[in-house]
Amino acid sequence: MARAGEEALIARYFAPLSGPGAEGLRDDAASLVPAPGQDLVVTADAIVAGVHYFPDDPPGSIAVKALGVNLSDLAAKGAVPRGFLLTLALPNDWTEAWLSAFAEGLGTVIRAHGCPLLGGDTVRSGGPALIGVTAIGEVPAGAILRRQAARAGDRLCVSGHIGDAALGLALRLAPDAGFEPAHGDILLDRYLHPRPRLALVPALRRHARAAMDVSDGLVGDLTKMLAGTGLTARIDVASVPLSPAARAAIARDPGRRATALTGGDDYEILCAVPPDSVAAFLADAEAAGVPAAEIGSVEAGDEAPRFLDAQGHAMDFARTAFSHF
Amino acid sequence: MARAGEEALIARYFAPLSGPGAEGLRDDAASLVPAPGQDLVVTADAIVAGVHYFPDDPPGSIAVKALGVNLSDLAAKGAVPRGFLLTLALPNDWTEAWLSAFAEGLGTVIRAHGCPLLGGDTVRSGGPALIGVTAIGEVPAGAILRRQAARAGDRLCVSGHIGDAALGLALRLAPDAGFEPAHGDILLDRYLHPRPRLALVPALRRHARAAMDVSDGLVGDLTKMLAGTGLTARIDVASVPLSPAARAAIARDPGRRATALTGGDDYEILCAVPPDSVAAFLADAEAAGVPAAEIGSVEAGDEAPRFLDAQGHAMDFARTAFSHF
Repeated sequence: MARAGEEALIARYFAPLSGPGAEGLRDDAASLVPAPGQDLVVTADAIVAGVHYFPDDPPGSIAVKALGVNLSDLAAKGAVPRGFLLTLALPNDWTEAWLSAFAEGLGTVIRAHGCPLLGGDTVRSGGPALIGVTAIGEVPAGAILRRQAARAGDRLCVSGHIGDAALGLALRLAPDAGFEPAHGDILLDRYLHPRPRLALVPALRRHARAAMDVSDGLVGDLTKMLAGTGLTARIDVASVPLSPAARAAIARDPGRRATALTGGDDYEILCAVPPDSVAAFLADAEAAGVPAAEIGSVEAGDEAPRFLDAQGHAMDFARTAFSHF
Repeated sequence: MARAGEEALIARYFAPLSGPGAEGLRDDAASLVPAPGQDLVVTADAIVAGVHYFPDDPPGSIAVKALGVNLSDLAAKGAVPRGFLLTLALPNDWTEAWLSAFAEGLGTVIRAHGCPLLGGDTVRSGGPALIGVTAIGEVPAGAILRRQAARAGDRLCVSGHIGDAALGLALRLAPDAGFEPAHGDILLDRYLHPRPRLALVPALRRHARAAMDVSDGLVGDLTKMLAGTGLTARIDVASVPLSPAARAAIARDPGRRATALTGGDDYEILCAVPPDSVAAFLADAEAAGVPAAEIGSVEAGDEAPRFLDAQGHAMDFARTAFSHF
């Protein structure tokens, strides 16, 4: 099949996804009018075929992941998205069918979250595909939620369910590892399709003192939240929210609990909330359709956070976080 | 040599390049406080080893190019830089020495233009290196300079010298092609080190009606500036500004004139200026230390721009622009 040149591809697949100020992607840059009283929040994350996703994942799913992981970062900072830029590095064997499905996947996320395409670049990668996104959001002036702003006594909360994506990846890597089929589909879907928790932004702005998204595993990310702050944490592992699918998988193989806690790709929000705001935060989260759970508390101390099992023993993890590098 | 993990690399090489709002790159996002009365201008361009640069180019030069080509886009839009995000996809054989020199190169551009690092991502490419930059700048509200805003009668001007980088690339590809050594060094330097024409921004804001940077060759970029607008242009090739090095190279081989006009990587500014502003624009450009030249005019018509030689004959180009894709 003849493949179109860069300008034709942009006009066909990407211009329809572009927003105000982007001039239909016919210029080298877009303009963005800041809303009065808001700060911009900017973040960039890239995903690479064979590193962050499987090259044969559906192209629409790859798009959902590439944009979703960046919108997850905005949500964790208390920001609402304004738009994004896309760097698409394609392998030599790219096809228009792949590109068309990829653009369709992008479109679903763009429409769901009102986050148009503002610009970008399309190049040959000379190797695997790479999809780089820079997302731009807004927060009220001075109100960006920081990762390392927790205080001793704050309660730690997480949104949604932890571990589904890591268990989905385990299932993807070993399809006959004894997952129930109905649960397996749910876990695989959670691995493929991050759901950025933007609905939680109002509750986070109102109640959270510190926040980050859980992308590299709850254990490792909580460690990052507290590293160098003179704070540690105590987590009640039984209170970490698990989906029915994850509970069933762990019931079959208790070793999977550690996978769930350390495995990454959750794209849930981990936040520190002052104790007297926890009830209101949980109620607001529930009302926003993103249930959250209190899982532990922040304490003074320099040691690593402790994850306590039902018997009160600290769990010992062979690895604490996923490293993409 | 042992290689540090991602966080250590960021702390060592990139945190020192970061700006206000970036929290020393210890968070997943940065905040940017918009200046009152300004719009943001955003642009993203990536360069790939073996496609946009030679893998054995000095790492500092690669950094200068990666950031410079993006700042060139900001300059062409009349924007001054506020900061940038970096996506660095490294090949398997990356070294800390490479990274250290790369960061040093970035630092020179950051300091020259007051454009700090705001965030980014470091990943394994699984193939050649890819360096993606998203640059963020500011223009007075509503004043972004557009590529396709020229009108019939406007004069076309370009900054600096056209063709040096294309001739430098030709020299790089065929080192014994009969360039004078002193001139060859100048041409190679222009190929390696784009000089974003940010000094021209005040003059562009004051006088230009439309602008773009010349990155894919003057002939092709002028064609893009006018495509679909019902406008064409007449260029007096003898008035296209050439450096002494380029003049000498063309004197030895007249075929090089077409290379200079179509070859790309100039990172000069092409702009349309109303006739009664040309003299003031050229004077302001000169005063800003970036001489510019009038090379032709915009006319009504749908045909491709004509490049007229000294005899008034339209030149015929085998290829009109460099396509990276």
